[in-house]
Amino acid sequence: MRFVSDNAAPAHPKVLEAIVASNRLDSAYDGDQWSKRLDGTFSELFETEVKALWVSTGTAANCLALAALCPPYRSILCHREAHIETDEAGAPGFFTGGAKLVLLDGEGAKISPEIVNAGCDRIWKDVHQVQPAAISITNATEYGRVYRAEEVAALGEVARSRGLALHMDGARLANAIATTGERLADVTWRAGVDTLSFGFIKNGGLNAECLVLFRTELADEIEVRRKRAGHLSSKGRMLAAQILAMVDGDLWLENARAANAAAQALARAAPERLLHPVEANEVFLKVTAEESAALHDQGFEFYDWRAGEIRLVTSWDQDPVAVDRLASAIAAL
Amino acid sequence: MRFVSDNAAPAHPKVLEAIVASNRLDSAYDGDQWSKRLDGTFSELFETEVKALWVSTGTAANCLALAALCPPYRSILCHREAHIETDEAGAPGFFTGGAKLVLLDGEGAKISPEIVNAGCDRIWKDVHQVQPAAISITNATEYGRVYRAEEVAALGEVARSRGLALHMDGARLANAIATTGERLADVTWRAGVDTLSFGFIKNGGLNAECLVLFRTELADEIEVRRKRAGHLSSKGRMLAAQILAMVDGDLWLENARAANAAAQALARAAPERLLHPVEANEVFLKVTAEESAALHDQGFEFYDWRAGEIRLVTSWDQDPVAVDRLASAIAAL
Amino acid sequence: MRFVSDNAAPAHPKVLEAIVASNRLDSAYDGDQWSKRLDGTFSELFETEVKALWVSTGTAANCLALAALCPPYRSILCHREAHIETDEAGAPGFFTGGAKLVLLDGEGAKISPEIVNAGCDRIWKDVHQVQPAAISITNATEYGRVYRAEEVAALGEVARSRGLALHMDGARLANAIATTGERLADVTWRAGVDTLSFGFIKNGGLNAECLVLFRTELADEIEVRRKRAGHLSSKGRMLAAQILAMVDGDLWLENARAANAAAQALARAAPERLLHPVEANEVFLKVTAEESAALHDQGFEFYDWRAGEIRLVTSWDQDPVAVDRLASAIAAL
Amino acid sequence: MRFVSDNAAPAHPKVLEAIVASNRLDSAYDGDQWSKRLDGTFSELFETEVKALWVSTGTAANCLALAALCPPYRSILCHREAHIETDEAGAPGFFTGGAKLVLLDGEGAKISPEIVNAGCDRIWKDVHQVQPAAISITNATEYGRVYRAEEVAALGEVARSRGLALHMDGARLANAIATTGERLADVTWRAGVDTLSFGFIKNGGLNAECLVLFRTELADEIEVRRKRAGHLSSKGRMLAAQILAMVDGDLWLENARAANAAAQALARAAPERLLHPVEANEVFLKVTAEESAALHDQGFEFYDWRAGEIRLVTSWDQDPVAVDRLASAIAAL
Repeated sequence: MRFVSDNAAPAHPKVLEAIVASNRLDSAYDGDQWSKRLDGTFSELFETEVKALWVSTGTAANCLALAALCPPYRSILCHREAHIETDEAGAPGFFTGGAKLVLLDGEGAKISPEIVNAGCDRIWKDVHQVQPAAISITNATEYGRVYRAEEVAALGEVARSRGLALHMDGARLANAIATTGERLADVTWRAGVDTLSFGFIKNGGLNAECLVLFRTELADEIEVRRKRAGHLSSKGRMLAAQILAMVDGDLWLENARAANAAAQALARAAPERLLHPVEANEVFLKVTAEESAALHDQGFEFYDWRAGEIRLVTSWDQDPVAVDRLASAIAAL
Repeated sequence: MRFVSDNAAPAHPKVLEAIVASNRLDSAYDGDQWSKRLDGTFSELFETEVKALWVSTGTAANCLALAALCPPYRSILCHREAHIETDEAGAPGFFTGGAKLVLLDGEGAKISPEIVNAGCDRIWKDVHQVQPAAISITNATEYGRVYRAEEVAALGEVARSRGLALHMDGARLANAIATTGERLADVTWRAGVDTLSFGFIKNGGLNAECLVLFRTELADEIEVRRKRAGHLSSKGRMLAAQILAMVDGDLWLENARAANAAAQALARAAPERLLHPVEANEVFLKVTAEESAALHDQGFEFYDWRAGEIRLVTSWDQDPVAVDRLASAIAAL
Repeated sequence: MRFVSDNAAPAHPKVLEAIVASNRLDSAYDGDQWSKRLDGTFSELFETEVKALWVSTGTAANCLALAALCPPYRSILCHREAHIETDEAGAPGFFTGGAKLVLLDGEGAKISPEIVNAGCDRIWKDVHQVQPAAISITNATEYGRVYRAEEVAALGEVARSRGLALHMDGARLANAIATTGERLADVTWRAGVDTLSFGFIKNGGLNAECLVLFRTELADEIEVRRKRAGHLSSKGRMLAAQILAMVDGDLWLENARAANAAAQALARAAPERLLHPVEANEVFLKVTAEESAALHDQGFEFYDWRAGEIRLVTSWDQDPVAVDRLASAIAAL
Repeated sequence: MRFVSDNAAPAHPKVLEAIVASNRLDSAYDGDQWSKRLDGTFSELFETEVKALWVSTGTAANCLALAALCPPYRSILCHREAHIETDEAGAPGFFTGGAKLVLLDGEGAKISPEIVNAGCDRIWKDVHQVQPAAISITNATEYGRVYRAEEVAALGEVARSRGLALHMDGARLANAIATTGERLADVTWRAGVDTLSFGFIKNGGLNAECLVLFRTELADEIEVRRKRAGHLSSKGRMLAAQILAMVDGDLWLENARAANAAAQALARAAPERLLHPVEANEVFLKVTAEESAALHDQGFEFYDWRAGEIRLVTSWDQDPVAVDRLASAIAAL
């Protein structure tokens, strides 16, 4: 009974069907009929003209965007526990050619205008200190917290006023939207987001994320950077096809709702143990080492986080029986 | 009737079946059962202990290896028309952090010990000129020419004597082996090759190449570089599974033989027009612009190469009827 | 009356004389007689065989060394207020090709074995998190605090046990030694230091620092990196000559003692205001904005540091009259 | 009697005097009175508003400019024997973050519009091939050949029409101007040059070159890159002062004329042996190995270039007696 990560779940059957269906001769790279539909599909989804590029990992999606937004000699402001800082092996430094991440604090891995402003104000405006070029936020965050549209808009306002770009790592954006019910447009470009890594892999996809560019003029550069990073698959149709399958009939939302519901079931089992409000598909609990061991002994797999804390992650296909069992086990601790 | 590139062909049905079969919960990244089988499978295939890593493109396979073999301040010797020079958008410069490619001439995109020695001797041994660290060869080459084991061994000897590493871009290694019938071991590590990009995508795979490390101590660094380049897929089992399917029952050889046979059929149609001996699945013909236009008009798709030259590439699934038609059309020019 | 920085002071007359004396035809780059004397001079000074390279700035000295000690995909542990983090415009990221600085806390910009161990322990040992490769310490620190030999040795022990290299930014090493009276060997290589940026520019030099390599096998790589970074001056003799002049007759120590004495005079003026013990040539005082303004009004130039703090830096040639006046002005606040 | 390189000559006495005169307390970095005069001095010299930055080597001047003109994923067209390709240890790759040099042929290390156009036309306009961003020319070239203003203007026209920037490596621009008598403005910005490395070190300076930016908006970025590369000297006044001394009273022209005259004297000794017209301070002669040895035996120091060729370089302070002796020795071969 696995609650380790949504990363490891199988792909949704419709995603596999789409891959199989796309397995025919077509133009190589992104010249095929599926890849060509991405711009239109995502422009409709986001209610504005966008460029939409398939990429095979979230790390690549994030870092290709950041490299286009931040030159090597400037920096990106992000939370201290942002995925780009803690889990991408320094990929931002590689893709940007040496730009810095400036690490900010903030409850639940969220940052606020005050935090960003304070971070910027600590930087002396001279040639000796690295000047910021962009802000990156994760929605939902690494602690399963959600930015509402108005919160993003407040950050977008700070970004605009300071001449910074705004990137959103949306590896779990579907889970955020499933919770808030907000429009994708409202929480992204209308709020000042320039580029979005729209995640599908944790949510039923196989190996395709979509990099959505609200500043469409960035596409040419990012397409070159994608190729240069070895990310231009010759049979890219298999990536485009899975993304289209996820968007079709709002499968992305359906899957996210399922994962979120499982997380809520777990959260209800022990509200007093919650370390963070559960707003997506991650549940962080205050649990002693002994209690954690007891849960592991019962066959539940999950991460022991920091001392006295555990992390439970639910997937689009989480077995309800396993969820019930874990909920009961937690309640019984 | 498409003879543009083997890049664009569909994946073999067995490859798709393997992907579907691997679509279940397992450890993320390369911790799954399929990924774990790669080292053993390729050690057997190559008759020595190797490390075998999946990578989603040939560019990534080549450049991850080169980055481990060549520091930023040294250079890689390769043919002027090597894929790493002409078709990877400068990826070697990106992955290595600025290393140079030193471009060599040579018939059919092949290089020889004499050419490599002359290239090295032109470099003054001081701090002002960039000193070489590695040689990269492509087998089969971009012109469909094949290196025999003894030719590779001669280059391996030069590499060893000059302290250079030797990388083989094997995007079409299957086609080379299908022609020569040589053992994989003989044309690679026994001949002094340190790292091999073993290509499957042009040969019936979907989006997985295998980076084979004969110097197994390179694996740790390359695994970090793979992650850092955004190439560590969380559901890596789908990559491993396709590679295993290609190796299983020697599907890789069977597919390559089919593609090569189609190329031979085309070559026989007009031996006097051949610009290069046909040793793999590429046919370069001397054809006037008018003749080329006539072929295009008959529905054949292919690249017009340099002035007066065309390139025909055959795939594992090339339709024999189309091959016959093209052969006849060429013969009738 | 300037207490802004030791960076801006004139060079010592003997340094200029040495430059003038070296102004004759000799081999270019570092082939001249002065450059060739560096290894021997510094081997004697450090009581062991070293390689000693001239470099024209402290940033270049630090970052050339760090690039040789830390590959692009690993990290360097340093204090949050280390010069390499706060004042080098991201140069470590540039020279290393994207390596990270992991920022540590610590009183007076000093770090300890406990702090380093805790910093390392927070890093998960996997491919997702950037693994450390080196520790960098500044002696004296950016707050004018000094590492004693035994403190460095304790850090050296941690470095050795964790497989990390140890770099010392010695932009103000002379000031540290002038205070402790310790042997250079004891506070560097005997304590586990691998590379040292030995600073002269803040201490009476004009534009030459000396990069001292206790691991002499690093020299070849660093010489190439120096050239590649545009730091191989063709008339390098002028850099070597000034370094030799600073070492000759222990001018470096004499100058540092003068600067330190001036700092002590200031420190004695208001011991209750000291934010840090004064161990080198920097004095940090708790001073209100009004008091600071009053000092500025009297013609004293210095940095207002954080709110309620000022920084006073003394130079080798600090005018005693100005020191007395400032001391009196502080005492009179 | 040394004819190896103008790199190794002493600095002119006025340059040393200027350094000594600037050795007083002033603002650090480039905030001093000498550094502040550069923009004005060079704006006057070039008859237009420019930004002028001191840099301590020609490699740094060239590569800081190129990094601002060419992103990591594009290329710079230059001659196969350009200094940036053959003598800077791969610095362009380092400073740009991996951009390529595309190497062109051309008599005397000069390139022409036809050569540039042919070079560009060979590059396919797609994402697989690296697209050019800039052209770099050297004036005078590595073979002592000179570009006239109209030749530069023709290249400037190609650059403009193709959207490429144009950089001039003017390590020996003084020698070129001394020969042609053209206005600096005509051979640079009026001809379409965007950035110029104006060399002084080979021409009587000690360690300061001037990077002249005709596109003044590049200054902010280049100033950051200069700091980040460890090239922002804290006592930068010593660099500015030498440049000002070289410009004052046209010392740069006077020195170049002296060096050129010495080269002409050598050229007249054996016009039939000249490999290139002598237009600056370099003389390339066709000389057998035995003849070369004979010259070396007579105490003349110089480079044996390719087989059967020697290179003689004259400096601003070349001893006329030595020149006469060498001329006689050559004539007597």
